[in-house]
Amino acid sequence: MNPEVQKNLLQNNNFELLPNERLDDLERDGLYIIQNPTRFCFGIDAVLLSDFVEFKNGAKILDMGTGTGIIPLLLSKGHKSGRTPGFIDALEIQKTSADSAIRSVRGNNLSHLIKVTEGDLCSASEIYGHNKYDVVTINPPYMKFDNLQNATDDLTISRHEVKCTLEDICRESARVLKFNGHLFMIHKPERLAEIFEQMMLHHLEPKKLRFVHPYVDKPPTMVLIDARLGGNHELKTLPPLIVYKEKNVYSDEILKIYGK
Amino acid sequence: MNPEVQKNLLQNNNFELLPNERLDDLERDGLYIIQNPTRFCFGIDAVLLSDFVEFKNGAKILDMGTGTGIIPLLLSKGHKSGRTPGFIDALEIQKTSADSAIRSVRGNNLSHLIKVTEGDLCSASEIYGHNKYDVVTINPPYMKFDNLQNATDDLTISRHEVKCTLEDICRESARVLKFNGHLFMIHKPERLAEIFEQMMLHHLEPKKLRFVHPYVDKPPTMVLIDARLGGNHELKTLPPLIVYKEKNVYSDEILKIYGK
Repeated sequence: MNPEVQKNLLQNNNFELLPNERLDDLERDGLYIIQNPTRFCFGIDAVLLSDFVEFKNGAKILDMGTGTGIIPLLLSKGHKSGRTPGFIDALEIQKTSADSAIRSVRGNNLSHLIKVTEGDLCSASEIYGHNKYDVVTINPPYMKFDNLQNATDDLTISRHEVKCTLEDICRESARVLKFNGHLFMIHKPERLAEIFEQMMLHHLEPKKLRFVHPYVDKPPTMVLIDARLGGNHELKTLPPLIVYKEKNVYSDEILKIYGK
Repeated sequence: MNPEVQKNLLQNNNFELLPNERLDDLERDGLYIIQNPTRFCFGIDAVLLSDFVEFKNGAKILDMGTGTGIIPLLLSKGHKSGRTPGFIDALEIQKTSADSAIRSVRGNNLSHLIKVTEGDLCSASEIYGHNKYDVVTINPPYMKFDNLQNATDDLTISRHEVKCTLEDICRESARVLKFNGHLFMIHKPERLAEIFEQMMLHHLEPKKLRFVHPYVDKPPTMVLIDARLGGNHELKTLPPLIVYKEKNVYSDEILKIYGK
């Protein structure tokens, strides 16, 4: 970002930056996010999940494990559906990430729409209550925690199941969702059988599935899942989402998702 | 097929045809199959499943719901792996289909390799015993039986779960398979969550998944699944299998599978 623009934003919108943090333009409806490149920056998975999410005008949404708040920000304005949520709760266990998310929400003047809470998603239903949300979103840690990693650093917690398992995610989602509410998740295809197992154990019926392939002739690297609490058995698998049409050239669909 | 060739085959190879039956060239290692077009002819799903199956030389294979025996025939000779099974049992509940499969096996001089049994796959473990096979294959009825259909005709039984459910298939597969043996199935993507649920309930861990899309930008119409009895949690999703590269033009991979 142009330093002058950044300076204006900092002055005009009250984005408070800590050392090592920077302000990134989301290039969508004037949204910005505070990130610390030495800690964690959002990736394409958060963008794809936000695009995949469906909700009605006024929907109550909970983003579990929100990190620096990228998903609530992307759902708050300029969603492809043209709809606006009624309210978004965002839960984050890591204090530094939650704090950064809070400052991004404030800086974007979205405090009326997004509330960030520092807390453990394993206790989401205690924090927020049962039967509260139309939509839960989660971009969870993808990898099992094998005790080899350092369990305390931010990157490990955001990538490995140190603090929560698939069982925790599905149990708490089923509790906080209203009947017929939707859980939207992005995850690794390698975990799909476990994901379905845990979802179905908690009456979250997988309804839509979309694999994300780097190239059309390569295995998928991510999978998008939409599950409905109390849904009937019928899963719709969408066409593959292809990231690159050739080396270093994004597919038309990815460009569209990024608003290019 | 040229009537003269067909007459020679009938004379030389003892393919006994009943009224309305015809002899179809599988165009693979001199294999033929007896089919009755007024009843049921095999489709692309059986061909794709046979191609997807992996086995070692000498493997003991059970094909459940074999119909007219297409899968055992395709696995008996000319498999892309270059391997030959040790023995294939083929189980079919419908007398007319089982009888046709028996005559196809005899006509192809494969009675030493394939044994067709008329019987119910819900009792497969009683018929064949436990812990017997390296591989189970099944191209099952895809649709739930809703009692609206006529439950007695062949087509309904081959397409709807009149005679067996996913639970029956997974339970019996887990019983007849050796530990670490593989179940290969083709099914509808709409049923994937239920399939995974039933597999995992019976310790059949989904290991490989491949979706079959008519076109690259269309939803899949079939899914191929490889599950291992007692396998660990890790699912590999393969690149999509695309049937047509453009209208009426098969993809290169489909042509290769068909040996063109």
